[in-house]
Amino acid sequence: MQRLPGVGPKTAQRLALHILKRPEEEVNTLAKAIIEAKKQVGLCQVCFHLSAESVCEICRNPNRNNNIICVVADSRDVIALEKTREYGGKYHVLGGVISPMDGIGPEQLNISALVRRVSQQKVQEVILAISPSVEGETTTLYVGQLLKPFTLVTRIAFGLPMGGDLEYADEVTLARALEGRRELD
Amino acid sequence: MQRLPGVGPKTAQRLALHILKRPEEEVNTLAKAIIEAKKQVGLCQVCFHLSAESVCEICRNPNRNNNIICVVADSRDVIALEKTREYGGKYHVLGGVISPMDGIGPEQLNISALVRRVSQQKVQEVILAISPSVEGETTTLYVGQLLKPFTLVTRIAFGLPMGGDLEYADEVTLARALEGRRELD
Repeated sequence: MQRLPGVGPKTAQRLALHILKRPEEEVNTLAKAIIEAKKQVGLCQVCFHLSAESVCEICRNPNRNNNIICVVADSRDVIALEKTREYGGKYHVLGGVISPMDGIGPEQLNISALVRRVSQQKVQEVILAISPSVEGETTTLYVGQLLKPFTLVTRIAFGLPMGGDLEYADEVTLARALEGRRELD
Repeated sequence: MQRLPGVGPKTAQRLALHILKRPEEEVNTLAKAIIEAKKQVGLCQVCFHLSAESVCEICRNPNRNNNIICVVADSRDVIALEKTREYGGKYHVLGGVISPMDGIGPEQLNISALVRRVSQQKVQEVILAISPSVEGETTTLYVGQLLKPFTLVTRIAFGLPMGGDLEYADEVTLARALEGRRELD
């Protein structure tokens, strides 16, 4: 249990003791559900988002705009962006960011599939929505260079978070907010 | 002591007891320093930033760009922006944001002085750098409308803070980051 993310020794003990107290039937149901989930949920063949079918719900949805692809590092980012209800295009999940320190190069990510997808299909815009860490920036620039010959490549805005206070923003964020200023509508 | 910002009953007691323990001379020095500071520090006649002289250091500095004015709500925001070392123009401190609930209308802020400054002087750009609260947005739009006839009006970027994780960003920030996307250089 302790190997699960966010579960320390104490929580692991609490979970273990809770399971031992439950009736055998209930415990079997939990164990089966875990095995089933692992068996059924794979990756979408098109965008590499988590999916119970070979092509995920977002890729199959005919109401979503095929001409715009949002590139993210992880399936969790797809879920976060879907919650905004602001985006009606498709996604492409890289499966991580380029990180030579951890032995993750471009070959370990779903980048060649993305380039194939963009070069073969008519895509008007690719939005790079990768978190702004050092590895994230590297990945953004690398993927951006590969895609530029085929389509318009944009990236999400960096700056002050909503409800954030100028006074408490770190210096790099403030500098990016100044640099990224836009004309007032 | 308890009326000072960020000082609760316990801290107030600690401060008071500390002062009572110090030699009389030291306490007098502190009291005099407070009185002197209050006497000497006023507001800059040009930009309303805190200043010991009638015109502040930033306004007097001949190396700073006169053609660009960054509008902020508070002197603390000037200090925050100066720390980035990215901005070489002048400032204008509004002294707050429009907040009808607190009885603060445009007349209570240094807005008319700003309009006069921008209309009389040759200013290429005014950057509105006001924190994105409801009151801040109102102030940005109000001031922007007043200044547009005279100059280019821009606003700082809103989006993901640096080092921020897409997954943990709130939905409004993510929506703004998507909406404010820019072409990759």
